[in-house]
Amino acid sequence: MANYQLVLTTCAHKEDAHIIAKTLLEKKLAACVNVLPHIESFYMWQGKMARDTEIKLFIKTQAAKTHVLIDTLKQIHPYDVPEIQVINITDGNEEYFSWIDEVLA
Amino acid sequence: MANYQLVLTTCAHKEDAHIIAKTLLEKKLAACVNVLPHIESFYMWQGKMARDTEIKLFIKTQAAKTHVLIDTLKQIHPYDVPEIQVINITDGNEEYFSWIDEVLA
Amino acid sequence: MANYQLVLTTCAHKEDAHIIAKTLLEKKLAACVNVLPHIESFYMWQGKMARDTEIKLFIKTQAAKTHVLIDTLKQIHPYDVPEIQVINITDGNEEYFSWIDEVLA
Repeated sequence: MANYQLVLTTCAHKEDAHIIAKTLLEKKLAACVNVLPHIESFYMWQGKMARDTEIKLFIKTQAAKTHVLIDTLKQIHPYDVPEIQVINITDGNEEYFSWIDEVLA
Repeated sequence: MANYQLVLTTCAHKEDAHIIAKTLLEKKLAACVNVLPHIESFYMWQGKMARDTEIKLFIKTQAAKTHVLIDTLKQIHPYDVPEIQVINITDGNEEYFSWIDEVLA
Repeated sequence: MANYQLVLTTCAHKEDAHIIAKTLLEKKLAACVNVLPHIESFYMWQGKMARDTEIKLFIKTQAAKTHVLIDTLKQIHPYDVPEIQVINITDGNEEYFSWIDEVLA
C-alpha cells in the first residue's frame, strides 16, 4: 500500500478550483494542490457527446487521509458526481514526503 | 487489479486530439477524455535532442476495456509509435465509477 | 513491479524545466519529458497559505533508472526540497516501451 497518493479531480471554474484547494489545505487533507488551466473535456451525457472547458487539479496527500479527502471533496465540489481518482505514489523524494507529513500533522 | 484506469497519450495537434477523444467515446472505450493544451515535449530522436509542442490526453476507462482501447488508439493515432501509458486508479468517487460503468455498458 | 514509471516534479520557471529535461535526456535517465505550462500551486508554507505559478514535468523512464533519476533531479533542481513523485505504468504500447529501452540503452 502506498503511503502517499495523488488525487485527481476536475471542475468548471478557476474560482471553484481555488476554493477546493484552499479548503483541503486548511483542513490538513492535502499538502499541495496543482491547478491546471483550460483543459477540454469530452464525455457522453445522456447519450450525446458533450464538450466542456474545465480545470484539472492534482492533489497530493497521505494515503491515510485519502478517504476523508474524498468525502470532503464530494461535499464541497459544485458537481453532483465529481470525478475523483486516486493514484498510488510508489516512490520519490523522501524529504518531500517528510514535508507532506509535517504539513499534514 | 484496479477496475478503472487512466490512459495517457500525446499527439501533435488539437484536431487529432479531438478525433481521438470522439472516436474512443463513440466506441464506448472511454468515458471521459481530458485534452491538455500546449505542452512541450523533449525527447531524443536518432541521437539528437528534439523538442515539439504537443497535446496531452488523459483518458478514463474501465480496466476491462484498456487492451481494446490501446489497440484502437494505435490504429487511429497519427504517430507510428504513439506514447500510450496506463496507470491504475486505486480509489475514488464510487458514484463517478458507477457513471463510467453506465456510460461504457 | 512495473518496468516503466512516470516521474512528476514541478519547478518555478520554464528555463529550469528545460534544463532539467535536457539534463535527464542527455544522461539517459529519461526517454521523454513533457513540460506543462502555467499551473497554479497552492500549499502551506510556515503555517500560511502560499500560491505560486509553476511548471509541471511528466518524465517517462525505465523503473531501473528511477533511483538514479531521483538523485540526479535532487542535485540539479533549483528547489531545496523538490516535489518528486513516482507512479507505476502498468500497461501501454509495447512498441513505445521498446523505444524507451532503445533510447535509454
